[in-house]
Amino acid sequence: MKIGIGLAGLGRMGRVHAASLASRCSVAGLACVYDADPAVAQEVASSSGVPAAPSFEALLGFPGVDAVAIAAPTAVHAGMCALAAAAGRPVFCEKPVSLDRGATLEALAAVEAAGVPFQVGFHRRFDPDWAAAVRRIRAGELGDVYLFRTSLRDMAPPPAGFLARSGGFFVDVTIHDLDTARWMAGEVVAVTAHGTAASGEPFTSLGDIDTAVVVLRFEGGALGVIDNSRVAGYGYECSTEVMGRLATVRIDHPQVRHYEWLTPGRAEHDLPRDFGQRYPDAYAAELDGFARSVRDGTPPLVTGWDALAAFDLARAADLSWRSGRTVAVEPQRTPSGVVYRVPDSGL
Amino acid sequence: MKIGIGLAGLGRMGRVHAASLASRCSVAGLACVYDADPAVAQEVASSSGVPAAPSFEALLGFPGVDAVAIAAPTAVHAGMCALAAAAGRPVFCEKPVSLDRGATLEALAAVEAAGVPFQVGFHRRFDPDWAAAVRRIRAGELGDVYLFRTSLRDMAPPPAGFLARSGGFFVDVTIHDLDTARWMAGEVVAVTAHGTAASGEPFTSLGDIDTAVVVLRFEGGALGVIDNSRVAGYGYECSTEVMGRLATVRIDHPQVRHYEWLTPGRAEHDLPRDFGQRYPDAYAAELDGFARSVRDGTPPLVTGWDALAAFDLARAADLSWRSGRTVAVEPQRTPSGVVYRVPDSGL
Amino acid sequence: MKIGIGLAGLGRMGRVHAASLASRCSVAGLACVYDADPAVAQEVASSSGVPAAPSFEALLGFPGVDAVAIAAPTAVHAGMCALAAAAGRPVFCEKPVSLDRGATLEALAAVEAAGVPFQVGFHRRFDPDWAAAVRRIRAGELGDVYLFRTSLRDMAPPPAGFLARSGGFFVDVTIHDLDTARWMAGEVVAVTAHGTAASGEPFTSLGDIDTAVVVLRFEGGALGVIDNSRVAGYGYECSTEVMGRLATVRIDHPQVRHYEWLTPGRAEHDLPRDFGQRYPDAYAAELDGFARSVRDGTPPLVTGWDALAAFDLARAADLSWRSGRTVAVEPQRTPSGVVYRVPDSGL
Amino acid sequence: MKIGIGLAGLGRMGRVHAASLASRCSVAGLACVYDADPAVAQEVASSSGVPAAPSFEALLGFPGVDAVAIAAPTAVHAGMCALAAAAGRPVFCEKPVSLDRGATLEALAAVEAAGVPFQVGFHRRFDPDWAAAVRRIRAGELGDVYLFRTSLRDMAPPPAGFLARSGGFFVDVTIHDLDTARWMAGEVVAVTAHGTAASGEPFTSLGDIDTAVVVLRFEGGALGVIDNSRVAGYGYECSTEVMGRLATVRIDHPQVRHYEWLTPGRAEHDLPRDFGQRYPDAYAAELDGFARSVRDGTPPLVTGWDALAAFDLARAADLSWRSGRTVAVEPQRTPSGVVYRVPDSGL
Repeated sequence: MKIGIGLAGLGRMGRVHAASLASRCSVAGLACVYDADPAVAQEVASSSGVPAAPSFEALLGFPGVDAVAIAAPTAVHAGMCALAAAAGRPVFCEKPVSLDRGATLEALAAVEAAGVPFQVGFHRRFDPDWAAAVRRIRAGELGDVYLFRTSLRDMAPPPAGFLARSGGFFVDVTIHDLDTARWMAGEVVAVTAHGTAASGEPFTSLGDIDTAVVVLRFEGGALGVIDNSRVAGYGYECSTEVMGRLATVRIDHPQVRHYEWLTPGRAEHDLPRDFGQRYPDAYAAELDGFARSVRDGTPPLVTGWDALAAFDLARAADLSWRSGRTVAVEPQRTPSGVVYRVPDSGL
Repeated sequence: MKIGIGLAGLGRMGRVHAASLASRCSVAGLACVYDADPAVAQEVASSSGVPAAPSFEALLGFPGVDAVAIAAPTAVHAGMCALAAAAGRPVFCEKPVSLDRGATLEALAAVEAAGVPFQVGFHRRFDPDWAAAVRRIRAGELGDVYLFRTSLRDMAPPPAGFLARSGGFFVDVTIHDLDTARWMAGEVVAVTAHGTAASGEPFTSLGDIDTAVVVLRFEGGALGVIDNSRVAGYGYECSTEVMGRLATVRIDHPQVRHYEWLTPGRAEHDLPRDFGQRYPDAYAAELDGFARSVRDGTPPLVTGWDALAAFDLARAADLSWRSGRTVAVEPQRTPSGVVYRVPDSGL
Repeated sequence: MKIGIGLAGLGRMGRVHAASLASRCSVAGLACVYDADPAVAQEVASSSGVPAAPSFEALLGFPGVDAVAIAAPTAVHAGMCALAAAAGRPVFCEKPVSLDRGATLEALAAVEAAGVPFQVGFHRRFDPDWAAAVRRIRAGELGDVYLFRTSLRDMAPPPAGFLARSGGFFVDVTIHDLDTARWMAGEVVAVTAHGTAASGEPFTSLGDIDTAVVVLRFEGGALGVIDNSRVAGYGYECSTEVMGRLATVRIDHPQVRHYEWLTPGRAEHDLPRDFGQRYPDAYAAELDGFARSVRDGTPPLVTGWDALAAFDLARAADLSWRSGRTVAVEPQRTPSGVVYRVPDSGL
Repeated sequence: MKIGIGLAGLGRMGRVHAASLASRCSVAGLACVYDADPAVAQEVASSSGVPAAPSFEALLGFPGVDAVAIAAPTAVHAGMCALAAAAGRPVFCEKPVSLDRGATLEALAAVEAAGVPFQVGFHRRFDPDWAAAVRRIRAGELGDVYLFRTSLRDMAPPPAGFLARSGGFFVDVTIHDLDTARWMAGEVVAVTAHGTAASGEPFTSLGDIDTAVVVLRFEGGALGVIDNSRVAGYGYECSTEVMGRLATVRIDHPQVRHYEWLTPGRAEHDLPRDFGQRYPDAYAAELDGFARSVRDGTPPLVTGWDALAAFDLARAADLSWRSGRTVAVEPQRTPSGVVYRVPDSGL
């Protein structure tokens, strides 16, 4: 029997999850959908062959809904998490939990109090390529890490309206790489961020950026460097390199279609255009991983505390970019997870 | 609503289909399973969460079974096709339909008489890489074909017991490439085949081969060359090249995991080890394509007559190998499809 | 001190050799040039900073000419070889030595009688990529050969006038692959050749072909397959694969420039357009290798008997293509080298 | 006639130049060698077939020496430049001209006063891959630059003795990337550098680092990021990416040998191990470019002022690393070239 997922929020990411649940997941299954726009909910319900719930509360109580996946706008994440926790439903929530740190902590407290599994949408932890590399790193094949390097780039930016509510570049984009950095190379002690609005509008007017370089220093002394773009132009890219004492690993992007087209003097192949093309396996695997936690009671691979840590590092990056200086951070081990202190910032 | 598939035969290929139906197909769904060994049927039924039928006849009549997929041993394909046709059930059947040409014709006649869709398991026609290349060829981007070249190679051979009942190398292995050749470069007028038992046993004792080169001449004057191996050692490979007047296309194999592992002076990456690793999308897509034909009444993309054509070309290759000479073949257009005559052979 | 080379024949290949001698060779140096067209000779002499000889005989006697390299039209190769031998000059000669087997044998006899080193222009034996692969094969890392596969393709054909005097497709193009086949996979016992004039004129009018597939059977039982084209369109390609019991090696073509250019959804890189772009190292290395033989008295890596063997196999391919049947050949070991008998052909 | 080069300094880089002059350069030729160690000078002279000069002054006056190439230890560069200028000899000098800014300025003044061509050894400007990419950028195909990214990594560090006299990581390693950054993306206005001694000794004891990340901000608003390592382990790497409004270009490293070796489940190929393997063409081309300037009176492609600019940026990086803050720099156009001011540093 599959674990029935009630899916809330049917925008771009919600539809990716609906597709995964329809045809790629083997443990998680779609049980019911909800969207603030009833017409959208009805459309996805029809095409998926599942019912639409008239409210998030109704979704929580719908027969066959064992757990919920929240892909609604960030502003309502925390409230939905609290409602789901109160209803005893395990929660999968897209990142970030909230743009407000206090609200994030309250949501984490709510799910902890309710004792339900909580997993955040850092899909890269479930991608088979990254996961295979991490297994070899954990097995000692790479040795001490010397340098961590990663690129996350979008082909074209989202609409200005989305940007205005995104929490800013570092919280919306870099947060994924900050989680990957912690996962692959350990905890961070300093963050230095640089940004530019290379393409101009609408970034300039929004006081936001489209291109960033973030340098990390890890506890073990290694350096990390992240580059991000919202305007890469050529396509979507997510690639990572970890250089170590014994070996170096490079994770790259497969082509979408595996053929080369040759014309006089030139070979060409396609490039992925968006995250949906790069990560079909990862998006399905993260929901299946969540469903396994629900079914078997095993802890989720990526927790609310991981979400908070990446969020705090993203805030430190934002602070560094705005202040033009390096921001020191202090990872502190707690029984729940690693909590970051940002001494000179009020964070 | 998905089209319910009754799956008959739960050996290696049958389990691939069960996995596709469980988690990758979006139009086809697994409704019921059957295997000649009740314990095997029960095991797959349990893990798939569907019932096991006690007989193929029972499978045909099981509620929710809209169509059948036959992955049983070749010897029983034709009989199952006839039974399914008699029961009015659309049929997806693994290749070859039969090792006996007469039995193949009878099976085709049965499904035609019953008026049910019939599709044969040439999965490459549904693979998104090959399909994308063919779309560009059909659109005229490649121009006249000059040379078709393809490799199909297994990492290690199947057991001797399977080989003995396989119909021989050309009917079991090359048949896929012969279908691809027709699909990409047109009909064939001459076949010259060469084979060797390069690895020795058990091929030598069986009078069979493990390595072959088959040269085709197409109606349009182009040449084709197929190389096949059962003992490639390094992995599974299926790659194709079509050279044309305007362009050349090369379809290759993606890595299984998309990372490189670098050690002093050396970069390495993995290779696919079997067809299951190479073709997860194609195996799901062929069942979804079949389900669409069942649902919408559209003709299958690859028919029983295509199966017969590839089978006859495989038989011509076998004759060429045994006789040491080129075998002329004559493609004849009929309303049902292209039928090959092999004038100097009794085929 | 470099070994002074007198270069005879300053057409396309002669100019490649002039360039190698000017700036890539470290043991061989250009001492003097000759061409049947005095204006051409003078032009190359000026740009190279060496004198032009008024005749081939004068070239042979020119001070500083330790050895000669013959890149004149095939029709005069054999005569030049005999003259050089008579003058005691070591000879490097482009392939083929002659389109006439008797003339080839006479030339070989002349250089053997004179006791001078004789090397033929199978440059691939000197290419560092092929040479490195062969070293690993010879060291046993690949094990028994199962399948040899190679492609040699030109982007665009030479002028019709050249084609008419080329000796035909197999003697002009395939001969390189036949030498490579012997070098990498051993002696051949059967040749089956297929050809087509896929692009039409001028091949059709000349009774020649532009595309060929040649299948070899080796003494050890392995199969070999060569595909060749004069009209590949996309570029020049020379790639080889040897599949063995323990490993498989693939030699491919590097890009000319090592960068990728990315535009929306597409990555592209260049392809070599001719043999000069693919083989600058090999062309220099073959002349340096020849110069070392001259200097040190070591036997050339590729001899006149190798030239004859490849020529005889090319003739067997031509016979096979014309007759539509497999041609058996018999390699016979002699103290000078391997000599092929072609029993059923008069070759 | 080739331009005769007197080569001073026959350590590692000097021998690379000797090899280029012997067999790869077409305009520059080796005329005479000098080394502070007469035995070394004699050894290279013998193997190169040119005389050894007993002193640098003697080299300058040696018949056939049209210009000098200085590859001696950095400490004697400036003095040699002045001597050569006084003797009216054009100068090619390895980077850096000096570890002392004043001495660098004096050397530049000396060659300007003497009116002789002066070129510094930033070989990447002559590499055909980089040069081809820059041509397309200059032609407008890439559009405004958004992000410049480059990696320069050595497989293993030089001996501690060399490190102690190297001027430190940024002046010895990063300087090449700083020149490339200016060449490809324009002038720099801010430098932020991070470093670590990830491998420990001898870097820790020397107060030096083995791994660095340097972030640049360009005048046009683009960001740049350089990562460098002396302990990459897997091999030598020099790769660059420029992302722009219209296109993105990636320059990567070719394999040393162009073959793949396939064993069960795994494909492997080699990686370059040092700069000599990566840049044979660039090292020859920079000397030929210099020789053309000498012969034709054209200005060198990379001047002493370029050397100074990269040196000043390297010093700014060093200051940033030591101070933990971003260092602002001010490029100022002068008739000679761009001169950098580093306001808050005394540089």
